[in-house]
Amino acid sequence: MKDGKIQMAHGSGGKMSHDLIAQVMVPAFSNEILAEMHDAAAVTIGGARLAFTTDSYVVKPLFFSGGDIGKLAVCGTVNDLAMSGAKPLYLSAGFVIEEGFSIADLQRVTESMRAAAAEAGVFIVTGDTKVVERGAVDGLFINTAGVGEKLTATNISASQARVGQDIILSGFLGDHAIAVMSERHGLVLPAEIASDCAPLGGLVGEMLAAVPQIAVLRDPTRGGLATTLNEIAKQANVGIILDEEKIPVRQEVQAVCAILGFDPLYLANEGKMVVFVEQEYTERLLAVMRLHSYGREAKVIGKVTDQPVGQVGMRTLIGGIRLLDMLTGDQLPRIC
Amino acid sequence: MKDGKIQMAHGSGGKMSHDLIAQVMVPAFSNEILAEMHDAAAVTIGGARLAFTTDSYVVKPLFFSGGDIGKLAVCGTVNDLAMSGAKPLYLSAGFVIEEGFSIADLQRVTESMRAAAAEAGVFIVTGDTKVVERGAVDGLFINTAGVGEKLTATNISASQARVGQDIILSGFLGDHAIAVMSERHGLVLPAEIASDCAPLGGLVGEMLAAVPQIAVLRDPTRGGLATTLNEIAKQANVGIILDEEKIPVRQEVQAVCAILGFDPLYLANEGKMVVFVEQEYTERLLAVMRLHSYGREAKVIGKVTDQPVGQVGMRTLIGGIRLLDMLTGDQLPRIC
Repeated sequence: MKDGKIQMAHGSGGKMSHDLIAQVMVPAFSNEILAEMHDAAAVTIGGARLAFTTDSYVVKPLFFSGGDIGKLAVCGTVNDLAMSGAKPLYLSAGFVIEEGFSIADLQRVTESMRAAAAEAGVFIVTGDTKVVERGAVDGLFINTAGVGEKLTATNISASQARVGQDIILSGFLGDHAIAVMSERHGLVLPAEIASDCAPLGGLVGEMLAAVPQIAVLRDPTRGGLATTLNEIAKQANVGIILDEEKIPVRQEVQAVCAILGFDPLYLANEGKMVVFVEQEYTERLLAVMRLHSYGREAKVIGKVTDQPVGQVGMRTLIGGIRLLDMLTGDQLPRIC
Repeated sequence: MKDGKIQMAHGSGGKMSHDLIAQVMVPAFSNEILAEMHDAAAVTIGGARLAFTTDSYVVKPLFFSGGDIGKLAVCGTVNDLAMSGAKPLYLSAGFVIEEGFSIADLQRVTESMRAAAAEAGVFIVTGDTKVVERGAVDGLFINTAGVGEKLTATNISASQARVGQDIILSGFLGDHAIAVMSERHGLVLPAEIASDCAPLGGLVGEMLAAVPQIAVLRDPTRGGLATTLNEIAKQANVGIILDEEKIPVRQEVQAVCAILGFDPLYLANEGKMVVFVEQEYTERLLAVMRLHSYGREAKVIGKVTDQPVGQVGMRTLIGGIRLLDMLTGDQLPRIC
């Protein structure tokens, strides 16, 4: 790797991303908190138990059906905090803008950050703006970092996955990726296809109030559901078996995937989550989730098993088991 | 502004940056914490008093005498926390990397982040890596955000500036900007010129332990000393008078400035601070600062006055008063 060059797939969220982070970032920054590899770090300051996270947003194009880079930058970081069982509270916003960028477009983006922050109940309290010359950045990149306060005494984390737990998915897969891709390529698609980009902090708060025993929460963004579940299986040293017939994908998204050769299991989502919970709490949790607009289609899609250890299998419609690997390569670059 | 385009000067840290932030960012994100316009936001979570800040780094070139983008990304955010009277604790790191970037160079950068974090006593606990196609970003941009714990019960803030206070500067001006600029343009300069990039959290901790009454702390980065002092004068509604003969600029930096037409008062520094303190504490504070390697040349460079309100004047070597405005336009783009 030392003599190598960065490839697009190093940013895909899949296998090459993992390798780069494991071989370059983690050894350099070596510390126990980072080594846990959560979406958000768990830190304690002055007795307060906090979650802290960051993401940079480089989505192309900046505006798409169902959202834009600003909404994405707020929701993505809010969701990383929520997935660690924290109440999202404060965000930072760092803008890198290309010389010549339209100020009206910048205002459209900041207005959409405002609206998303208001819905999520968070405040953007600190920021930074850099301008670089034409050609040094593709329009506008935004970084957000966020801090939140942990809602539960226990750690909600991939390592809490245990054999026998149910795996719940909150709704349809692939909407975000297909919406961005069709905007990018000027495809004319049914109006039903829009990004699912949404802040999940409110829903997670209600879920944890009803079932504080939730073991794992994760949002399947870059790399999609298959990559997210592989990460969990490997970290907890358990197997995962999904039922293909239970995995919700909109017909329109399925059709686009069939034509273009995408697999919805690897497509990025920006307003969905997977939840691992002991079976005894499943019904109560589903009831709470289905009352919320972002969890209306929640259902059990699989179980944690003792085999295949560290891997994800899917019981297919024709009755076999298909092993789902992490994303290799990069299905759709610059999706978030 | 609505029909306008972003110009390089919107990122200079000077007057146009202020206008953009005041007209676009602050109205959109409107909240009391952001409106205070500190380098770091003051937030309270679960009883803990925290500082939270962010900066994106787009310096060009990535490597220069005395530092690189990685060292800068750690020190810059550590210093923003320190300037708010907080002990810097945890950092995030968001990388946006151009396809084809050398992994060896990335390792050089992460190694330098590691070293800077170790010196500063902070941990990089969460991160994100995005890769964009060739031409979509100029090599490598890094965002860091940081959280720290407030060290004092009082708020250290520009609004605490009061008539009669001494203004202390911790050392020579302009080293960082001149080091980056000479690297960029391949100038052969004396070896003495190197970036002053350094983490100031340790020094600030010692200063606050000795003199908790410090009123204002600020690091004069983009826009330089003149812009920083203008911000403070306007925010506190006081005047500031500097003595030109007391302002420390290395001979080599003065020579480069004279040839190229730069004013050291507007050049970015990355390891310097200005301190406002009541006169009775000045000697004690100077003694503490001069014991530390990053404060060895600390001295009083001016005073807070009742005139000219909201402005900064400098008693020149020939006896007159020169008014120093904020930076207008952009002296040196992409300096941090």
